[in-house]
Amino acid sequence: MPDWTPDLSGPVPLYRQIAAYIRGKIGSGSWPPGTKLPPQRTLARELGVNRSTVVAALGLLAESGLIEGRHGGGTAVTRPGNGEGGRGSWLAYVEEGRHYPNLPAIQAINRLEFSPGLIRLGTGEPGPDLLPGTEMAAVMAELAQGPLPLPYEEPLGSLRLRRAVSAELARSGINAGPSSILILSGALQGFQLISLGLLPKGSSIVLEKPSYLYSIHAFQSAGVRLHGLAMDDRGLIPEELEPAAARTGAALLYTIPSFHNPTGIVMDLERRQQLMEKTDALGLPVLEDGAYQELWLDAPPPPPLKAMDRSGRVLHLGTLSKSASPGLRIGWIAGPEPVIQRLADIKMQTDYGASSLSQQAAAIWLEKGLHDRHTETLRMKLRERRDLLLALLERHFAGLASWNRPSGGFYVWLRLKHPLPLPKLFHAALAEGLLLNTGDLYDRSDSRHLRLSFSYASPAELERGIARLAEVIRQFGGQV
Amino acid sequence: MPDWTPDLSGPVPLYRQIAAYIRGKIGSGSWPPGTKLPPQRTLARELGVNRSTVVAALGLLAESGLIEGRHGGGTAVTRPGNGEGGRGSWLAYVEEGRHYPNLPAIQAINRLEFSPGLIRLGTGEPGPDLLPGTEMAAVMAELAQGPLPLPYEEPLGSLRLRRAVSAELARSGINAGPSSILILSGALQGFQLISLGLLPKGSSIVLEKPSYLYSIHAFQSAGVRLHGLAMDDRGLIPEELEPAAARTGAALLYTIPSFHNPTGIVMDLERRQQLMEKTDALGLPVLEDGAYQELWLDAPPPPPLKAMDRSGRVLHLGTLSKSASPGLRIGWIAGPEPVIQRLADIKMQTDYGASSLSQQAAAIWLEKGLHDRHTETLRMKLRERRDLLLALLERHFAGLASWNRPSGGFYVWLRLKHPLPLPKLFHAALAEGLLLNTGDLYDRSDSRHLRLSFSYASPAELERGIARLAEVIRQFGGQV
Repeated sequence: MPDWTPDLSGPVPLYRQIAAYIRGKIGSGSWPPGTKLPPQRTLARELGVNRSTVVAALGLLAESGLIEGRHGGGTAVTRPGNGEGGRGSWLAYVEEGRHYPNLPAIQAINRLEFSPGLIRLGTGEPGPDLLPGTEMAAVMAELAQGPLPLPYEEPLGSLRLRRAVSAELARSGINAGPSSILILSGALQGFQLISLGLLPKGSSIVLEKPSYLYSIHAFQSAGVRLHGLAMDDRGLIPEELEPAAARTGAALLYTIPSFHNPTGIVMDLERRQQLMEKTDALGLPVLEDGAYQELWLDAPPPPPLKAMDRSGRVLHLGTLSKSASPGLRIGWIAGPEPVIQRLADIKMQTDYGASSLSQQAAAIWLEKGLHDRHTETLRMKLRERRDLLLALLERHFAGLASWNRPSGGFYVWLRLKHPLPLPKLFHAALAEGLLLNTGDLYDRSDSRHLRLSFSYASPAELERGIARLAEVIRQFGGQV
Repeated sequence: MPDWTPDLSGPVPLYRQIAAYIRGKIGSGSWPPGTKLPPQRTLARELGVNRSTVVAALGLLAESGLIEGRHGGGTAVTRPGNGEGGRGSWLAYVEEGRHYPNLPAIQAINRLEFSPGLIRLGTGEPGPDLLPGTEMAAVMAELAQGPLPLPYEEPLGSLRLRRAVSAELARSGINAGPSSILILSGALQGFQLISLGLLPKGSSIVLEKPSYLYSIHAFQSAGVRLHGLAMDDRGLIPEELEPAAARTGAALLYTIPSFHNPTGIVMDLERRQQLMEKTDALGLPVLEDGAYQELWLDAPPPPPLKAMDRSGRVLHLGTLSKSASPGLRIGWIAGPEPVIQRLADIKMQTDYGASSLSQQAAAIWLEKGLHDRHTETLRMKLRERRDLLLALLERHFAGLASWNRPSGGFYVWLRLKHPLPLPKLFHAALAEGLLLNTGDLYDRSDSRHLRLSFSYASPAELERGIARLAEVIRQFGGQV
């Protein structure tokens, strides 16, 4: 989104306003020498003017030598506003750092999610109408009652919140005292702390394939390799584990046993037991992602792996992002105390703890039973939306694709009848106002799945979006 | 802090309660095989019982084979509660990860800061009575007025907050639009994003010595080397820069030009101009840390380096932690847009953005002028405390040390008359109830400085603490 738009009613011609705006960007160093300007069409759309106005503005700037056309197309900044050397630019470092950039599709998704008007068919968060806005305001009213000094919290996070999380975990069968729990700035941070703090360089991880973990680079950027294991409709196949672990020297198993992201699969109790036996025999630590476990729609899933752990082999990740509010940025990791302390030490060096304000709000949210009440309501609404999505798929996708009936979580894993070039499908859908999470984000070699979410789009958007998606795929299928 | 204490009035004998507590830790995997138990004395103090009670409890556990004495002292867990293999423990990874642990003294400080009763003479944050608890409660009251859905924010952070930060920066002479600003989960996070996202491995940084940056490992853990440059009372010596940059092939200069941490020095205007010229000639990008710049006590400092930057060579870090509230965990970095976008992409992979709740609160805080009003009050109070600390030093440290009169920030950089083994001094002071930040945290080879803070301890604590510190140093001086 642009941080400025021209004054349509003012006395200064639009093209001059725009030229002055860009001159300001260049003069202040916001667009240092070498910066590529956005395409004319993009600039025109973002600034709400005709393309010819943009062309006139760029013409002015080119005359004064501030920008120039480039071989191979596009326009770039030539030299700094004050005519000085302009060396020593940070720009040269943009492609230097060790951390991978997000996948281009993920970057586009992260950006486009804030474009108004798009129907978001794959977004993995509760939609605006499913967020507990009124209840959160009530939490604020409680915080407003007394003075609210906000110092740093302890390295493990607020004791009050850890007590509340401990009580929450106990209800899913997990025995973890407050000293075994580290509060995270969102569960995603757990991956980075583990990759920085626990894994030797060159480590390998075994995990389900497809997996959410393939769509982010937390581990890969730290030089950790991912090895995917096959699943069936009962979850990870335990027999796959031993040969894969042996072959790769895996340092840990990452798994999402309940309402797996993106497939929605639930690992059944027998598989969980087998997995715990196998990993015990192999001496393989387990990282269990419990992000969706409380969002069951038909019946609660079997107990988490951590609830079966007696020897401290399982680290368990949890979050408030999927039910309460993603914007709290509060997650947690539970496990053996020495491991939790090591992770806490890295966290102190990373961001010096999660927001104290969020921690206090989260503690009230859990303590007062607001979380349980909201989760109950959310389940009901998600059930309706899941059923709506399934009905819409019956109506529009018969013959085009097959799908599962998820018993919890946010996702239907749609399997297209024919493989398609998914990156092209992404752009074709985008042109029709649909934002997709395609299967290749979760398994690089995939060419026939879409992660459809029933958590974000409103019922009306789902109606329009799924019908339109079927059209796009039909047309698209004709083209390939 | 322990997460449990025994029930002193219950029918179960204390030593049995304690044994059951530890058995629970072991049985749940919180203390996996190999975990070292805290020393008996520590356990006794934390649980509020006699050491003999702890000895009796440990005796019970040793009898059942759960723990055993170790060669070289101490007690450790022998095997998991259920008698199974217990291999595959995360414990083996605790020392494996690539990220350095915090310095032992920093770990101790991070932990001890939450011990009641200690006088914190070096803490770099506003004390509890300087935090704007009432005003923050008013911000919450405002947030409580409407529904408060908390979705994820845009990759750069809330546009509303970025606009407010942009206005704030403009007042210090920095021209940075909302698209040039990335909201951070505390300014500390900026170091990690830069080290992961911008610096090639094996890079070097030149910086002032001593420096705050030596006390954390954000850059070192990423394989970046630090090369310290000399300062005088006008700040970094520009002539030092060229040979050091040439020798080390430095990728960037890190500097705290205003109210330097830990020395309190302000770089004067002429030096700032020379620095900008030198770095331009050298093509050396600059990372400017503006954490303390608004906390002037006598007169505002010269304009930030970023205000003199026309070619996008300076990245500028700012924070709400030093004036508003550390627990908001809100900072920002301003610079060229392509660089800011790269950092935002890494941030999305790291923690998916700062707390939306903190961002909304921070936006209100800035927009309503609460920040300015509070900062004005804070300056007044800090002025009083600085003058008190200086008076106390005159009274107790004449002949023991020399010091500067800081014109802003939080710190007096105390220079001891005689070098002392600072790690020993740290422990000697701790035994007297004083928590110190010793000079070796900011320069490994230092043996004669203490960073004294007038921002944290109350006036009464400063009175007691500084008198006691002088005694400790006198006694200590006699011992060496």
